[in-house]
Amino acid sequence: MILTVTLNTALDITYRVRALRPHASHQVTEVSERPGGKGLNVARVLAALGHEVTVTGFAGGATGRSLRARLAGTPGVLDALLPVAGTTRRTIAVVDTATGDTTQLNEPGPAVTPAEWSAFLDAYTRLLRSASAVALCGSLPPGVPVGAYAGLVRAARASAVPVLLDTSGEPLRRGVAARPDIVKPNAGELAELTGSHEPLRATRDARRRGAHAVVASLGADGLLALTAEGRWRAAPPRRVAGNPTGAGDSAVAGLLSGTVENLPWPDRLTRAVALSAATVLSPVAGEFDRPAYEELLDRVTVTEDTPAA
Amino acid sequence: MILTVTLNTALDITYRVRALRPHASHQVTEVSERPGGKGLNVARVLAALGHEVTVTGFAGGATGRSLRARLAGTPGVLDALLPVAGTTRRTIAVVDTATGDTTQLNEPGPAVTPAEWSAFLDAYTRLLRSASAVALCGSLPPGVPVGAYAGLVRAARASAVPVLLDTSGEPLRRGVAARPDIVKPNAGELAELTGSHEPLRATRDARRRGAHAVVASLGADGLLALTAEGRWRAAPPRRVAGNPTGAGDSAVAGLLSGTVENLPWPDRLTRAVALSAATVLSPVAGEFDRPAYEELLDRVTVTEDTPAA
Repeated sequence: MILTVTLNTALDITYRVRALRPHASHQVTEVSERPGGKGLNVARVLAALGHEVTVTGFAGGATGRSLRARLAGTPGVLDALLPVAGTTRRTIAVVDTATGDTTQLNEPGPAVTPAEWSAFLDAYTRLLRSASAVALCGSLPPGVPVGAYAGLVRAARASAVPVLLDTSGEPLRRGVAARPDIVKPNAGELAELTGSHEPLRATRDARRRGAHAVVASLGADGLLALTAEGRWRAAPPRRVAGNPTGAGDSAVAGLLSGTVENLPWPDRLTRAVALSAATVLSPVAGEFDRPAYEELLDRVTVTEDTPAA
Repeated sequence: MILTVTLNTALDITYRVRALRPHASHQVTEVSERPGGKGLNVARVLAALGHEVTVTGFAGGATGRSLRARLAGTPGVLDALLPVAGTTRRTIAVVDTATGDTTQLNEPGPAVTPAEWSAFLDAYTRLLRSASAVALCGSLPPGVPVGAYAGLVRAARASAVPVLLDTSGEPLRRGVAARPDIVKPNAGELAELTGSHEPLRATRDARRRGAHAVVASLGADGLLALTAEGRWRAAPPRRVAGNPTGAGDSAVAGLLSGTVENLPWPDRLTRAVALSAATVLSPVAGEFDRPAYEELLDRVTVTEDTPAA
């Protein structure tokens, strides 16, 4: 199975309102809820691609129970989340039905105690034994040490399990130094890590910091990959319009599934770009449009970059 | 005991954010939750005044469970809520920490089935037997007939239980016609009911529509009461600045407690105004500042209006 780690899971709530005006009262016309946090989104896409997936991380309180109840209804995803005394955060996306624009409100995550963190490390080590690959995704809740991902990367490498890291800020900086197989920063995360806004230069810098492969997601421009086997750019056939929520998580699912299937890098990148674009095109935030995905698979262009002498 | 009815209970959530900007992403710095819906707010204040209170209405789903768990921790309030298959709504108050202004997002209530409504009517009839007074509070969730409050008023009157109605729109219009002992509209609800923005004229009209007593809450101007015993204006000694959330519910608690204690009308009004002002003064939305309440009790002015010939 593929393992995804989401230390800061969330109950993602979407509200539709006619027009959001600060300091006014609004009747919400439609409410939807789903299990969230990057690793859970990655797991959903992997399961839709036919992979067996196990999710771990933390869940607690009433929102944690709601999240797990909904997760139980997601075929192909096994719940190995650990309980915490604190309450899993909610995120609220307020979608303006007039303009389609979204206002986001993110609760703080639950405080994780040293005992809970230690229980997680034990469970993670056990789960690695049957994992074909692992994705470490998203932010850290309060109480989890900032070097957490570095430790989780080293444990995966020690178990010879390919590990992908998708986070930001200091947890990314420390995690990269532990030499993960793949990091997938977006343009902002890459610039924060390296200080450079020039994608190629920044990607090279990120790789020098320790990642075996760096796959930078550059929004509508697709992916830029620097690996031991070569350097590629992968792009969708056209600019796709829609909701980019979850596009990065779908790219991670594409890369990870391609890794466990031993696809060559160009094919992994094709899959990641097609899934990402099909997620933007989906009317439901964070899900991918399967017919669009199948069609895009044939139309993504991957070009090998010749490194400058 | 005093009975309060909240057909459309809510889990009231308050978020503090630095500055709410539409279409941006916000980190919530503080989250608080409490059982909500007007009748639950009234019950909390009645319990704080030393009355035994029973709350009924509907609660369902994960939010309903959270609401009931929190209600169980409220001393003096007995939970006689009925289960529904639907999910109790959340309300989210986003407080801007820079300005103190609040943006409100209210979910729709759960759909109530005819069987659930019928179970409520049975429970309500049983609860009336041991009630010294009843307050019918707030909006109706989908599925509850628009004439619901009229029926609940008639049942209370048939059981000789004094009944106060605090709602708006068509449910208020129909409820008033069933001759409740007291209605407590605010200026907006009164204008909507009667078509008049002149409080005295509108209050007279509301009384002619069937209410035995009309107590209009006029914000900072206090209360205007038209009753069979006389006509009074009651006002706080000064304009109070603060958060008006729950001030109307505190006024209802003041009127209802004064009713069961057989206080003369001027004393009921004094209590209602003092509680209402002490609620505006409280740093916590919907709670009242007890020292301020005690002090205000001596300083509210009640003047008898001489009806024009």
